[in-house]
Amino acid sequence: MTGLSKKWTEITIATILFLTSFLIHDHQSSPVHAQTREKHAQNVILLIPDGFSSSQATNYRWFKGKETIFDAMLVGMQRTYSANSKVTDSAAAATAMATGTKTNNGLIGVDSEGKKLTTILEAANRCGKSTGLVSTSTITHATPAAFATHVGARAKESDIARQLIPKVDVLLGGGKQFFLPQSAGGKQPQRNLIKEAKNKDYQFIETRHQLQHTRGSKLLGLFSNSHLSPELHRPETKEPSLSEMTTRAIHTLSTNKKGFFLMIEGSQIDFAGHAHDSTWSMNEIAAFEKAAQKAIHFAKKDGHTLVVITGDHETGGMSVGGYNQYKANIELLRNITATGETMAKKLTPARDNAQQIIKAYAGIDITAEEAAKIQASPHLATTINDIISNYALIGWTTHVHTGQDVPLYAFGVGSYLFNGLHENTDLPKLMAQAMEIPFSQ
Amino acid sequence: MTGLSKKWTEITIATILFLTSFLIHDHQSSPVHAQTREKHAQNVILLIPDGFSSSQATNYRWFKGKETIFDAMLVGMQRTYSANSKVTDSAAAATAMATGTKTNNGLIGVDSEGKKLTTILEAANRCGKSTGLVSTSTITHATPAAFATHVGARAKESDIARQLIPKVDVLLGGGKQFFLPQSAGGKQPQRNLIKEAKNKDYQFIETRHQLQHTRGSKLLGLFSNSHLSPELHRPETKEPSLSEMTTRAIHTLSTNKKGFFLMIEGSQIDFAGHAHDSTWSMNEIAAFEKAAQKAIHFAKKDGHTLVVITGDHETGGMSVGGYNQYKANIELLRNITATGETMAKKLTPARDNAQQIIKAYAGIDITAEEAAKIQASPHLATTINDIISNYALIGWTTHVHTGQDVPLYAFGVGSYLFNGLHENTDLPKLMAQAMEIPFSQ
Repeated sequence: MTGLSKKWTEITIATILFLTSFLIHDHQSSPVHAQTREKHAQNVILLIPDGFSSSQATNYRWFKGKETIFDAMLVGMQRTYSANSKVTDSAAAATAMATGTKTNNGLIGVDSEGKKLTTILEAANRCGKSTGLVSTSTITHATPAAFATHVGARAKESDIARQLIPKVDVLLGGGKQFFLPQSAGGKQPQRNLIKEAKNKDYQFIETRHQLQHTRGSKLLGLFSNSHLSPELHRPETKEPSLSEMTTRAIHTLSTNKKGFFLMIEGSQIDFAGHAHDSTWSMNEIAAFEKAAQKAIHFAKKDGHTLVVITGDHETGGMSVGGYNQYKANIELLRNITATGETMAKKLTPARDNAQQIIKAYAGIDITAEEAAKIQASPHLATTINDIISNYALIGWTTHVHTGQDVPLYAFGVGSYLFNGLHENTDLPKLMAQAMEIPFSQ
Repeated sequence: MTGLSKKWTEITIATILFLTSFLIHDHQSSPVHAQTREKHAQNVILLIPDGFSSSQATNYRWFKGKETIFDAMLVGMQRTYSANSKVTDSAAAATAMATGTKTNNGLIGVDSEGKKLTTILEAANRCGKSTGLVSTSTITHATPAAFATHVGARAKESDIARQLIPKVDVLLGGGKQFFLPQSAGGKQPQRNLIKEAKNKDYQFIETRHQLQHTRGSKLLGLFSNSHLSPELHRPETKEPSLSEMTTRAIHTLSTNKKGFFLMIEGSQIDFAGHAHDSTWSMNEIAAFEKAAQKAIHFAKKDGHTLVVITGDHETGGMSVGGYNQYKANIELLRNITATGETMAKKLTPARDNAQQIIKAYAGIDITAEEAAKIQASPHLATTINDIISNYALIGWTTHVHTGQDVPLYAFGVGSYLFNGLHENTDLPKLMAQAMEIPFSQ
């Protein structure tokens, strides 16, 4: 064969491969769309990784060392700002995603004038669907609260608890204190909501073991007085994982032939961002990903389910890299076995063992200067976290939230509706459209 | 052509026709993409806002005060890491986007072993299309360079210049020094590339006025010895805007009936990120958006054009908000009339007029403490920029790049191919697919 004809052979082969790739791509993508457009979504599972944006997504991919479940699901992004700020809090963001209305920071399920708003969970409920809320924070915390309650201040968690029972069929998370009579007499009459829930056919559970042996269609699972433990320190005999709560919630709700709406929050990705705790963040995202996998697995098997995943805002101003270096050492976090908070608690009262503690839990030989910084710090855990983030080359700009657009992921029936850039207020409208249920204010 | 190679040509064409018939059949069966899949893209315009990610996009939307041209074009995101780092530089990122191959930071159009790679611009050129590069940096800078040249170090801008002529039909930007004989005798023979370009039918221009009155099909426009001026300080009689260069490049290239490939870089969004200059950043994005509008306008009218827009990486670790506050004051930047660098130059040798200068150019009453910080600073412009960013509540984590996934925008023929999360190396493959031209290494 001449050099020229050899070149032409190569071109032919390249062309065939190239055009075949078209066909393969086309055949893979077309049937999916065909399927998704033919029917409506009977069930919607909305998973919210609180405080999760593109830097969290990228850092986590490096932490995991391979593709994440989110990667193949990316369909667009969403704008997170609230009615009164470019930087939302979780209350206003969740209200927007639950009701389709922007409100002020701090408000739960009401607009900026205080007017009660209908939530997507309530709209699903009116159509005979079952509903559920799952979180790793108190189940009365801003994000779950905004899907089913209406209060003028997110801190009123006892008020929120009163509104959750008996409206929401499955409630799994922390915050038992807000369901029990308060020790200090407040303005509200002393009620035992757990007792009331039992009277209204809820099964009440408070351990991981109990969760695995539930039955019935209404479930109140409160596994801690306050927030659940960080995944890194979860007491396995007592607390279930987010993934286990997700499996049980889906199992319970999916017995309703009319379908269900379920919101699942990975609450502590946000907590970790506030604290600049890179290790905590990565481990919470890993736990959240496992929960997302359960939802996707169900959606695939079921064939009538839409799964939407999106952060409500970014927390911390996290970056991939930072500190004026063209690199990042995220792998370092894989071997760290404690949160900064936990390491802080291991220090002696004189804090003279910082080097040993950081070595023992993080495997890092901090410098004498860094040890001195820890010794003098008024914010112990934060200082430890900042030092570790510096070694991992993860930057931070704030201890609160930031206002950038965040990635939007969708899978299953109606997922195509979420393509492109959206307002957070579009989400409940699109979910209602996918379910073909009425939804308006 | 020999008989044998002619036979292979025929086989190639037959194969293309055969496989294309498959594609056409498939297009008919999926109505969603019917419009976009019926034809291929004759032209591709790739616009790269260097250093642009979701925080830049969001901050700019607030700066502008309304939707941007990017918003309606969001189709996905892309991963930016290089062959040897989680945090890419512009050379490796542009090489990935030009050749479909990840390489080491610093390398231009070659793989990590130094092997020369085919670029999408070269592939388009081989199919008879015209080609162009436009930037607001030296036209020999890393990003434009990687689309048409092959050098082992991005700093070798004279080598890059030698490779650009006569390969690329339209070259518009800065960097005249690299096209002229160097004053200090280097290793390379002294060549006058501008003279050579003229001999090869290029029209050479060096002012804004000349740009507006060009004709012919080959154009070398070098409007500055080094980078062009920041948009805020552009000498309007001398330098054209990015938008004007874009219009002229499209006008010149679109006379080729076989189509064209054009890469346009908003280079100084990145420069501003390195300097933490929020004002410079927003004004460069505004100038870039105007250029993007020209491209979209042409694509709409033409009907055979694909426009792709994406940053090569993020620069600065910018956040929307920061400094532990739930807000952002981006509007403040609208009234600022100078870059930090320019303000720094206005200070007296004793730097005792910082308060007056910042008031005059930025409208901000800085505190005595901030004035003292400027007075003592070893990095004058950076200190001014950090103070202003603090007032605007724009956070930064680094003076170099970060590694987060960045938004991906597409419009026109074949834009659907870019949906979802991609590797930066997917981009040239998808552009080749849209143009239906062979592309492989």
